[in-house]
Amino acid sequence: MNYRIKDISLADQGKNQLEWAEIHMPALIKIQKDLEREKPLKGVRIAAVLHVTKETGVLMKTLKLAGADISLAASNPLSTQDDIAAALVKYYDVSVFAWKGESEKDYYDNIKSLLESEPQIVMDDGGDLHAFLHENGLYGKVFGGTEETTTGVVRLKAMEEQGVLKYPVIAVNNAFTKYLFDNRFGTGQSAIDGVLRATNILIAGKTCVVAGYGWVGRGIASRLRGLGGRVIVVEASPLRALEAVMEGFEVMNMRDASKIGDLFITATGNIRAISKEHIANMKDGAILANAGHFNVEIDVEGLRSMAKSRRIVRPYTEENELQDGRRIYLLADGRLVNLAAGEGHPSEVMDLSFSNQALSIVHIYKNRGKLEPKVYDVPNHIDEQVALLKLNSMGIEIEKLTEEQIEYSKQWKYGT
Amino acid sequence: MNYRIKDISLADQGKNQLEWAEIHMPALIKIQKDLEREKPLKGVRIAAVLHVTKETGVLMKTLKLAGADISLAASNPLSTQDDIAAALVKYYDVSVFAWKGESEKDYYDNIKSLLESEPQIVMDDGGDLHAFLHENGLYGKVFGGTEETTTGVVRLKAMEEQGVLKYPVIAVNNAFTKYLFDNRFGTGQSAIDGVLRATNILIAGKTCVVAGYGWVGRGIASRLRGLGGRVIVVEASPLRALEAVMEGFEVMNMRDASKIGDLFITATGNIRAISKEHIANMKDGAILANAGHFNVEIDVEGLRSMAKSRRIVRPYTEENELQDGRRIYLLADGRLVNLAAGEGHPSEVMDLSFSNQALSIVHIYKNRGKLEPKVYDVPNHIDEQVALLKLNSMGIEIEKLTEEQIEYSKQWKYGT
Amino acid sequence: MNYRIKDISLADQGKNQLEWAEIHMPALIKIQKDLEREKPLKGVRIAAVLHVTKETGVLMKTLKLAGADISLAASNPLSTQDDIAAALVKYYDVSVFAWKGESEKDYYDNIKSLLESEPQIVMDDGGDLHAFLHENGLYGKVFGGTEETTTGVVRLKAMEEQGVLKYPVIAVNNAFTKYLFDNRFGTGQSAIDGVLRATNILIAGKTCVVAGYGWVGRGIASRLRGLGGRVIVVEASPLRALEAVMEGFEVMNMRDASKIGDLFITATGNIRAISKEHIANMKDGAILANAGHFNVEIDVEGLRSMAKSRRIVRPYTEENELQDGRRIYLLADGRLVNLAAGEGHPSEVMDLSFSNQALSIVHIYKNRGKLEPKVYDVPNHIDEQVALLKLNSMGIEIEKLTEEQIEYSKQWKYGT
Amino acid sequence: MNYRIKDISLADQGKNQLEWAEIHMPALIKIQKDLEREKPLKGVRIAAVLHVTKETGVLMKTLKLAGADISLAASNPLSTQDDIAAALVKYYDVSVFAWKGESEKDYYDNIKSLLESEPQIVMDDGGDLHAFLHENGLYGKVFGGTEETTTGVVRLKAMEEQGVLKYPVIAVNNAFTKYLFDNRFGTGQSAIDGVLRATNILIAGKTCVVAGYGWVGRGIASRLRGLGGRVIVVEASPLRALEAVMEGFEVMNMRDASKIGDLFITATGNIRAISKEHIANMKDGAILANAGHFNVEIDVEGLRSMAKSRRIVRPYTEENELQDGRRIYLLADGRLVNLAAGEGHPSEVMDLSFSNQALSIVHIYKNRGKLEPKVYDVPNHIDEQVALLKLNSMGIEIEKLTEEQIEYSKQWKYGT
Repeated sequence: MNYRIKDISLADQGKNQLEWAEIHMPALIKIQKDLEREKPLKGVRIAAVLHVTKETGVLMKTLKLAGADISLAASNPLSTQDDIAAALVKYYDVSVFAWKGESEKDYYDNIKSLLESEPQIVMDDGGDLHAFLHENGLYGKVFGGTEETTTGVVRLKAMEEQGVLKYPVIAVNNAFTKYLFDNRFGTGQSAIDGVLRATNILIAGKTCVVAGYGWVGRGIASRLRGLGGRVIVVEASPLRALEAVMEGFEVMNMRDASKIGDLFITATGNIRAISKEHIANMKDGAILANAGHFNVEIDVEGLRSMAKSRRIVRPYTEENELQDGRRIYLLADGRLVNLAAGEGHPSEVMDLSFSNQALSIVHIYKNRGKLEPKVYDVPNHIDEQVALLKLNSMGIEIEKLTEEQIEYSKQWKYGT
Repeated sequence: MNYRIKDISLADQGKNQLEWAEIHMPALIKIQKDLEREKPLKGVRIAAVLHVTKETGVLMKTLKLAGADISLAASNPLSTQDDIAAALVKYYDVSVFAWKGESEKDYYDNIKSLLESEPQIVMDDGGDLHAFLHENGLYGKVFGGTEETTTGVVRLKAMEEQGVLKYPVIAVNNAFTKYLFDNRFGTGQSAIDGVLRATNILIAGKTCVVAGYGWVGRGIASRLRGLGGRVIVVEASPLRALEAVMEGFEVMNMRDASKIGDLFITATGNIRAISKEHIANMKDGAILANAGHFNVEIDVEGLRSMAKSRRIVRPYTEENELQDGRRIYLLADGRLVNLAAGEGHPSEVMDLSFSNQALSIVHIYKNRGKLEPKVYDVPNHIDEQVALLKLNSMGIEIEKLTEEQIEYSKQWKYGT
Repeated sequence: MNYRIKDISLADQGKNQLEWAEIHMPALIKIQKDLEREKPLKGVRIAAVLHVTKETGVLMKTLKLAGADISLAASNPLSTQDDIAAALVKYYDVSVFAWKGESEKDYYDNIKSLLESEPQIVMDDGGDLHAFLHENGLYGKVFGGTEETTTGVVRLKAMEEQGVLKYPVIAVNNAFTKYLFDNRFGTGQSAIDGVLRATNILIAGKTCVVAGYGWVGRGIASRLRGLGGRVIVVEASPLRALEAVMEGFEVMNMRDASKIGDLFITATGNIRAISKEHIANMKDGAILANAGHFNVEIDVEGLRSMAKSRRIVRPYTEENELQDGRRIYLLADGRLVNLAAGEGHPSEVMDLSFSNQALSIVHIYKNRGKLEPKVYDVPNHIDEQVALLKLNSMGIEIEKLTEEQIEYSKQWKYGT
Repeated sequence: MNYRIKDISLADQGKNQLEWAEIHMPALIKIQKDLEREKPLKGVRIAAVLHVTKETGVLMKTLKLAGADISLAASNPLSTQDDIAAALVKYYDVSVFAWKGESEKDYYDNIKSLLESEPQIVMDDGGDLHAFLHENGLYGKVFGGTEETTTGVVRLKAMEEQGVLKYPVIAVNNAFTKYLFDNRFGTGQSAIDGVLRATNILIAGKTCVVAGYGWVGRGIASRLRGLGGRVIVVEASPLRALEAVMEGFEVMNMRDASKIGDLFITATGNIRAISKEHIANMKDGAILANAGHFNVEIDVEGLRSMAKSRRIVRPYTEENELQDGRRIYLLADGRLVNLAAGEGHPSEVMDLSFSNQALSIVHIYKNRGKLEPKVYDVPNHIDEQVALLKLNSMGIEIEKLTEEQIEYSKQWKYGT
């Protein structure tokens, strides 16, 4: 077996981490047990570009136990946990090409190394692997693939529209069970966790400004209120703004909010949600954090250009003293605060996302040759199955419709 | 002018009611003022089948001031407010054919009477008018129409699918601003208001079972929690059930919930969400109410068949004493508790819905001849305009994207 | 038996009402059953001045079944439910002297009538009976009494301080289980219920101003938030104001709040919490309600003096049009909105309060001759017993300390 | 100047930390500025035994600027931040005798060292200094002191009762502004923060069991709900249990709760709130944390005795595998999870507590000779002043009573 990792002797530590993750991934573990028995992926060659974390480790192990041969590279040069990489190599025969702190050349070389296995199914997080296969005409043996994130889905849809996509891809990102956990409940909690680890401030009594009321913003606003904050929502869509009002939040524009906020968290998906003009209005001691994907939402350069001095007062907490003495605190350089200052998503969140991955892989393989080269949503029955596995793992029994009720609901649908 | 109403002398009282409603319908009033100035419906003949309430009165007045000639009948034999009917006739020259307590023959005769005006635009709530026009081939002069409710939309979609729909219809029901207010926030509050008026119970400390976690169920669950209830959600969809769990609600099936609930509210859209088997499990004193559209969700006949005696202990509160002495309380005969025991939706809710109606009517007329005979959603710009009018009426200024931000969000969409 | 009521033929209707109340008063019913078996008040003569409602009826029945002979008059000329009065006379041999709509002379004559029975224990709500007995030297045979309200307790404490109190009185008002239900959870819900019945407005999205953050204000603020309102608290005590801030509420003075509120509810216990100056700032459509004991919190005369016209637009909703056309809505003449526009406290609330009454009466009788002429709090073991009865009636089993834990907690108290 | 610390070269780093703390302690800073100008403690000798943290540093600096000479030792051998100790020595002339990791002998030697200064006012956290002074008859020059914690107050009250207390002590612990922040809002947030840092679990959807519904338990229960948890309260007092029910929480005993909880947090102040019997019921994966003062609430020894193996899976997270394979996770050895796995209270919390300290010290000095040797509550005017300072620092203007209102509220109090 081929692999390139940092240190194989970290394998035992990695195995411990995998076991801790498994406890909080009951849905995926249930799937793992079924797949181990059935071996539906026997001999199938899979190449994956994913963050090499403990949760990804559980997914890789699952696919391995389902019978697949797996090669794995990292979807980010910095996100690999080297002990997990080692455990996957040593205990689960996964060909890993990844380590923390890869150079850009290493990063692409590692992705290339995956192709030596002539993969039949490809898993990606961001679209780099899909793009590489298409640009180099290496998709000949590929039955299909999956894509984990919004960014990758957007790229693949553009490929589909331009008629260049060559195999079917399931957009795991679009599953309800991915979406619900990842954006609303996952980031909702972890963004605030990141803020607390960086600052140790008390949320109760603080005026908290949330920019953006999409799913992430909703999650954050709800959690800040749950911790006793007074929450102001800034949003450009009148529909979302109105929904925020009806939920009891104050809604205003950032110009007004910038004058009264103690803590600002951005989740707009857009640039300069907090601009120099806004910063100029802020109170002494204001804290700025970003929970959006890219570090463009706070004008970091603008802030620093306004400062007469700058220093790190705590890890991830940068003080910028303005000309008039006001101090503005920037967390984690304006990068995703839950990942930079915290630990990212809890395992429970990845449990759902990766359960969709595992079942989608099996679905693609079973339906090889039958799917068109398009971007597909996760089939609804998979999404529902994942939800059900999670509910079962919690010991929750949901309502079961009677025959009569099923019949009635069909009638209803057709207006009879 | 032609009309048939109960008592024209009620007109002044009706005018008072209209004025009270107008205060809580600021979005529609803003539209009214614009339309009155522009007169875009000058001479257009409109026939409407709607609940003849004070809020409908404000809508009729609005269309009248926009220049239209209007005939109005009731969409339900029992829902007409006779003073509003009188005010519309006397002060706003609307041809009303409606009174509270119509016979079934009256009801249909009144709808027929609308056709004497040879309507060009038709407004409906439930689909009876649309169906009548099609069944009798009377759609010749009709440019298009609107439909207020889910039930009507379902019927129209069936007509569209069968290729028999003859003019375009805008499904006002599907507007976000209709949906958000009407189902989640409107029914959420008014269903509980109905329960309190019927029973005067204390919600705090009660175990409340909500059957169905669609928008109505979500609204009710959230409000019951907001009043101090312990809330259990019963739901058959694993996706919705999981969402309820993540919101912190207990989730179980009705068999288990039926044993511990103090108050049950159904909002499933299905039959027998509460069956005889469930009732047999219930505690002495359990209270049953329905917030779904039809009175099929609680097995009312089943309950009564189980009772050794039955009596009304308060208005809308029926005691059924079971063989073993347990007493089960049924509210409002299992009909929509917010309408039957309360006053239905607040004016604020109808403000949004009817703003969509008014703008959709203008949209249909302006685009006459250009729309296909299909069921259309409310155009997004109308939905957003309504939200914005509502926000403005509250003095709320939402965020305005900069040119740079608009540009960035476009790039994003195409993956560049 | 002696009595003076409106109409004895209402007795059966009153009996139905009593039975409905009993379902929601499980703690008192449990006490009733115990007392009926033990008859600890056999032959004891009780005189009571209370609101003659269905809940009071259940209390009277309870004391009767415990063996007492009871005379009952009304604590307010308007609050008597005549059917309850009839049922108490006909079915439970209570000597009732009360009807709805008593003149002031009737009111005092009825109280005097109670003395014919030469009462040994006296129950009061407001202190008029206690005052009458003392002023007229009629306390000779009285072992002691109870007092239900704050107002009465204040009067009795003044009597105690001045050394004129002649018998022991238990201040039921001060029991935790009275307090918790009555002020926080009872008024919290019922005040909003009163506002909704008067106006049918939607709370979600409204800016709601709560004046006073005592227990009543807390309850109201919490419930308004639970219904989706944006809540502003106005409070003069820095300690309470800070607590409100920490709970996530906005806090400001009434001058600022008066400019932005849609709905104002007062619960300060003080005069002119809303003054003419505040009213002059208000938005068109503002709604004013009072949840405090007396109708002095809103300057009703001031408001009316500012109005160029005034009318009732709905029951309990008075429109005052100011000189510049703004319309300010006053609910229920500024009187307690939960009683005036709603039905007052749910039976569940009175269950706890009256359980304290019943057990306090027995306590006084058992300890006759041993208590000093002072105002006593409800003994803690009674308060706890009432809570426990309520919990048991809900099927709730609380934690039971082990011997070891009891021992440990004692040690702790003495610092060892 | 005399001192004994770890490393004076850490002084600059400590100064940075002090400045970060000062931003979140606006009330104390306002007091600091006033005292610096007035110098009310000029030449007064103060000895303090406190946790040597950055917040204590700000308090010491404040007293120094008020004119005092200060000696400081640690109230816990492990809690000293050495950089703060250095900064206090170097920049503020405080005689510090403290370092992280003192032996027990060092700890007492350091306390003794304080006496060389012949203190006039003594500040304590836990009562060791007060006890030492009394046991050794060294209280001759002491005007009075303060005490920060419950434990110390209990000891002092025992001394007062036994007639041995020799000087007045103000129980800062009992101030509302200490209490409110420290227990309810401080521990409420920080305990959950500690759990998240130790485990990175998702709270949403978890069944969380809170043992004890005192102020700490209330805070935790409220925050867990605010993060989407389903919260069960276990409480032995029927009054507190009933309040929890009325707040919408499920209430049961630990025997039942132990079978369904995912996360358990104890805050009872008693031993074995979680016993071996409870642990035997628990689900695989259950997590146990303590937020009470002492590490007696979870039976740690019992748990470990039941385990067939034990290991640390993450910092502060100990896995105990039971005989049947279930894994129970103990956080931070059952010690206060907010301090052990998190950073303890945010500075905002200590701001209020230490503002009471500073003003109480001045109060004692100003009233020297006039106070009796008793345990005093913080004077109400100080408590209110601290709240007001905090509110002012937030830019909040509370309601100001008019003369008329002040007059009315006085009348009310005397029943006129």
